[in-house]
Order: sequence, then structure tokens, then C-alpha cells
Amino acid sequence: MSGTRSFTSAVSKAFTEGAALDASKLQITNNPKPSCPLPNDQLVFGQTFTDHMLTIEWNKGKGWSAPEIKPYGPLVLDPSACVFHYAFELFEGLKAYRTPDNKITMFRPDMNMIRMNKSAARICLPTFDTDQLITLIGKLIEQDKSLVPQGQGYSLYIRPTMIGTTNGLGVSTPDKALLFVICSPVGPYYKTGFKAVRLEATDYATRAWPGGVGDKKLGANYAPCILPQLDAASRGYQQNLWLFGPEKNITEVGTMNVFFAFRDSKTGKKELVTAPLDGTILEGVTRDSVLALTRQNLDPKEWEVNERYYTITEVQERAEKGELLEAFGSGTAAVVSPIKEIGWNGTDINVPLLPGEQSGPLTKQVAQWIADIQYGRVKHGNWSRVVADLN
Amino acid sequence: MSGTRSFTSAVSKAFTEGAALDASKLQITNNPKPSCPLPNDQLVFGQTFTDHMLTIEWNKGKGWSAPEIKPYGPLVLDPSACVFHYAFELFEGLKAYRTPDNKITMFRPDMNMIRMNKSAARICLPTFDTDQLITLIGKLIEQDKSLVPQGQGYSLYIRPTMIGTTNGLGVSTPDKALLFVICSPVGPYYKTGFKAVRLEATDYATRAWPGGVGDKKLGANYAPCILPQLDAASRGYQQNLWLFGPEKNITEVGTMNVFFAFRDSKTGKKELVTAPLDGTILEGVTRDSVLALTRQNLDPKEWEVNERYYTITEVQERAEKGELLEAFGSGTAAVVSPIKEIGWNGTDINVPLLPGEQSGPLTKQVAQWIADIQYGRVKHGNWSRVVADLN
Repeated sequence: MSGTRSFTSAVSKAFTEGAALDASKLQITNNPKPSCPLPNDQLVFGQTFTDHMLTIEWNKGKGWSAPEIKPYGPLVLDPSACVFHYAFELFEGLKAYRTPDNKITMFRPDMNMIRMNKSAARICLPTFDTDQLITLIGKLIEQDKSLVPQGQGYSLYIRPTMIGTTNGLGVSTPDKALLFVICSPVGPYYKTGFKAVRLEATDYATRAWPGGVGDKKLGANYAPCILPQLDAASRGYQQNLWLFGPEKNITEVGTMNVFFAFRDSKTGKKELVTAPLDGTILEGVTRDSVLALTRQNLDPKEWEVNERYYTITEVQERAEKGELLEAFGSGTAAVVSPIKEIGWNGTDINVPLLPGEQSGPLTKQVAQWIADIQYGRVKHGNWSRVVADLN
Repeated sequence: MSGTRSFTSAVSKAFTEGAALDASKLQITNNPKPSCPLPNDQLVFGQTFTDHMLTIEWNKGKGWSAPEIKPYGPLVLDPSACVFHYAFELFEGLKAYRTPDNKITMFRPDMNMIRMNKSAARICLPTFDTDQLITLIGKLIEQDKSLVPQGQGYSLYIRPTMIGTTNGLGVSTPDKALLFVICSPVGPYYKTGFKAVRLEATDYATRAWPGGVGDKKLGANYAPCILPQLDAASRGYQQNLWLFGPEKNITEVGTMNVFFAFRDSKTGKKELVTAPLDGTILEGVTRDSVLALTRQNLDPKEWEVNERYYTITEVQERAEKGELLEAFGSGTAAVVSPIKEIGWNGTDINVPLLPGEQSGPLTKQVAQWIADIQYGRVKHGNWSRVVADLN
């Protein structure tokens, strides 16, 4: 009953009762009609799926049932299921890649699984042993390994999802849930290399707020952001640059984290900056990778890499002084997405690009660093996990 | 690109293309296994449903398909359907009642339909002609009229729902949707008259925010509120009293609007107060009914009825001065729900009740005024709409 109380840990105990998620109990039913891979040029993000899906049911008391890999097919749910009424739903997005030695690897799946558990706990859906789910997703990928596309920019997009499946209209903790994973072979987000985007800085609609759920990957954070995007599009901007508060802090772009690069015109020192993880910012895996790689690879005499608050006013003022170097979004789908213009307060803030190109030099460099690791050309700690061997 | 821009109306044009919702195209398939009414004492809110459901598909370009009334049964959806990933979902809740002259009436369905369209427009789901949907819901109720329970406190709870059904993982405007309506025979929210509740005033979790969607009946507003409720319950409080901002404004309680009654100890004048509709407060139909009836029936020399900001600090201070008279939540499920205690800042604020009873006098009076209209004992403008005749 304190005014500054936060969540108690006691609450989550109910979700650890019953059987733990156990990959060794996996049951596989083969799809009797295996499909052929689509030509790479026909792959559209999230439009076609592999032949199999992973499903795992959870039940309060009993815990996690035996996982199943079975033919991709529809879900059958009562119209009173709580996922349809109260948005008991969360998801993850990660990718698997073919490496030069013909293996398939997942990129940093541990990060996604940890975040998935945080999302689940926040809306009273069950948590799970992350290693077990990684193992199971690996088996799902192996099952359809022939459908993982080849080539730079091509990958298998993996979508773990969890929904509450309790029937009945009372607003309460789900006592049934379904965890499912589907996979979509995808091409590069931008078909012909980068395509820098125009953003509209948005303060009339608010993506997330303190005490809310903007740092969790819940369905609830997505539907409300479409109308502002359509509105921005009607004025010629592809995405929203989400601002927060009277200070107009820059938080995210569209469904991505966002980075800005500045150069201090007095000292000559450069800075890469992104918003801090204060509970309103999605804990992006690509965001974390960009921070780690730039901190590791950029010369600290030349660059500072900072997680700090910064405002659209700072961006505008520094652009006017010639101190704005670059800006890009970061996310699993596009990896990095360069920005060329930001509409704000009746003017367009121009973001420099390399002459004749669609990105700045740091954006390009970061994209290359990440791709080299994702496609197995460069090893980086345990960021790549082998899940299948095509040899 | 202005800093204070709000939504353009241009955006919603896409949703008016194609066929309008047309009740005259209704197709009815009878349930071959009609059920018998459950005894009143076995009715649990939202746990059993009538024999039929109403479904209407929408498709971008084609518009609304022919409505169908058919046996209650499961929905079959692709696992990539956008309702599962991005919370493209909204709902309404309203009730139908048996009147003394053996008719069935809906209570203020026009208010719910207007709000449903506002919710739909906010998340880029299609809008519809409200009169057509009211007609169709009337036909659904008539279809199962024998299952509308009898008796004071008993009613048919009606749950119109709309979900986005587009397959594919791109985060964009749904081009397919399903509007469905299911009905649950329900008893009084409190089995034995009122049961006053204890609330925990909550400031560490925030239900809604300016620029957000807290005034719309979206699924997205519900799942994030369960964990704070479990937390409050672990400390002995049934619901959260949602506070907002550094001022700690009182906004809502649980999933209801909330009213407080004060008496000025100097002037003796009484005041009924609820938070204003500033975009963070659900536009409750019961809230509106309470405001209308108290403004109409209470003596203005004695009472003021105000929609204004007020804080937990004001409530605490006025309770200490003996100026806090009553407090109650308002919503379709419980109609009015009396409050007896509020945990805040390490103490419990006591809310007076009638001696030996579970509510204050105004709470009781308001409940009676509304019930008299709902059950057809008193006529009030066009608040009750006859949808079936049992004679």
C-alpha cells in the first residue's frame, strides 16, 4: 500500500508450478506435403511460412505439456478465449542464417528468450527454461532446413509467440496458454541495398510511458501505433519518430530502436547515442549488438558511445550547426535502417548520407559488422548458435 | 510535420470502401442442439454462452459480408493472423434484461456502438453503421431469447468483439477483420447484494497516458493491468485504484470508472465527482448514466455533480476532515461497486458505509435508479430498446 511500491516477486510463483518445459519430450509429426523453396526474389517478409510449426500447451497446475512439431496449420480457439479480448499475447523475432560452411545458425537466441520471459511475466503468462526453448526452435529449423534461404540478406525469420487461451470473459490471470513458433523465409528488408527513410517526429501520439509496458514485446504495443504511421504516410513520411514528454525525448522509430551520431564542432569528438533502457524502450537485441560492436570497434579517442536522453530539439539544433552526422533505426527485420530526413515543427531536418548512397558511413559499417557475424564470416563470442548442418 | 498535429480524418477513408454493414442480408443457421437455461444460481459471469453467435467478415475493398447467426463455435485462424501478434482487437460489453411485461430490452446499445466505432478507427479496423449492428444483435438475442435469465440482478451479457484476421507478420493495417458477438447469461456481480471492496491506490504502474489509447475499449488496455491487480491482491486489496502523474490524479478503478462523494464541512454542500474524459478515461456507459441520473435527480441546492481532476491526496485529506462520504466504481458488469477502504502511503483510507450495510446511501440510490430503468420498471428516454417479445 506504499506510494512507491513496485511488483512483488511472490506473484510469479503460480507460474512455476507443474511440469517444466522439456525439449526431450518433443513429438514430431511430419508434414505429408513438403514444399519446395520459393525463388529468393519471391520472398516477402512474413508472408510465406515453412512446413512445420512448434506448439507447446501450458496449463496452470500441470505446467508445460510435451512440445510438438507438426504441420503448419490453423489455430482453433473458442471465441471467448482471452487472447481475443484482453490481448494476452506476446512475441519475439529472431533470425537463422546459412553460413559459408553450410551450417544454419541462430543469432543471439538467448537474448530473445530472456526478453520473452520478461514479456510473459509482465502479463501473467507462464515463463519457461530458455535453453529448452532454444533447443526446440533449433529442432524446428532443422526440420525445415531446406527452406532456409541462401545468400547475403536472406535468412529465416523465426516468430515465437505466446497467447492466453483461457475461455471465459472474466478479466483475470490466464490458466491456459499456447506457445507456438512459426518460421518465414525472408529476403533483405530493402531489395536493392539500403533505402533511407523519411520520418515524422510524433508527439501527439505516445508509444510508451513510465509504469507502462513499452519495454516488453507485447501485442498491446503494436496496434495503437498503426494509425499514427498512416497519418505520417499521408504526409510523405514512412515512419514515426516517437517522442516522449514535454522535453520531446527521442525514444524509438516505428517498431525499431534508433541511433543518432553527432560531432562536436569544437572538440571534433564524435558521439553515437541511443535512448537508455528506462522501461519505455524496447530492449532490442540489434540495439544491444550495435552498442557492443561500436564500443568494441570504434576508436575511443574519436568516438563516444552513449545511452542517454536526447531530444528532437537537440537533433534540430545540432543539424543546424552541422553537427548531425547520421541516424539509423535498428531491429531484427531490417537490421539497420538509415534515416535521411525528419519532419518536425514545420520543417524537415536533413540527415547527411554518403554522396550518391542511401546511408552514412557508420550506418554502413555497423550493418557490415553485424552481417559478417550473422552470416558466419566473422566469429563473435557466442552470438551465433549452430542449429543444423546441411553437409 | 507539426509538433502539435493530431490525427487526420483522411486516414479513415479506406475503411468506408466496399459494402456497408447490412442487417437485411442476415443468414441464420439454427443450432441443432438447443440448450436448456441453467438455474440462476449456476450462472457465472462470462463462463457459459448462448447457443448462437453473430459473425460478420470484413474485407478491404469488398467491405462487410453478409452477417451470419450460427451455432456458437470455435474460430479457426492462421497462426500468423495479426490478432495474435499485434493486438488488433477491441470489444464492447452491454446487457439485455427481461422486463415485467415479458419483453427483452438492451440498455443504451447506441452508446456502446458509437464507442466500438471509435475503438475500431483508432486501431485501423473497419467502422460500421451502428443501427445495423444493433438490429443484428437484437436478432441474435431473439434467437436465444429463452436463455435470457429472469429476476432482479440477472441479465444477458453481450460481448461484441472485432479482431484483425490478416495473415502475415508485417506490422500494417489489417485488410481482413471479423466482427463477432457472443452472449453470456449472467447473475448479479455480487451474489448476495453489494459487497464493498478494498482498493490499493497504484502509482507504480500506469493504466493509460495522454496520447495513448486508455479511452478506447481495446484488448491492449487489459492484459497489462492483471499483474498490478495480483500484486494488490497479495496485500489484501481486490482492485487497483489507478493514479496518474506527479499529482496522483484518480482515474479509474480496476476495469471501471470511479466516483467519489464529498461534503464541504463549511458550507454543508455535497459533491459527486469523477475524472473528466481527457483521453485517458474510458467513456463508460454506466459512468454517463450515473452522471445523467444524479444531475437529474439530486437536489442542486444540496449536490454538485462534477467531472474534474481530483487526487488521492484530496481524498485522504478530506477523509481525515470527515468530508469523504462515499466512493463507488461504475461499469456494465457490476453496474455500481461500492468501495470501503483505500490503501495508500502505508495507511488505509476508510470510506463510510451505511451502518450494517455494504454501501453508502447515494451508491445504493444510484444502483436502484439504474436497475429500475434496466429492468423496465421506470422509463427513461430511449435508454431501453426492445429487441424481443416473450409473450
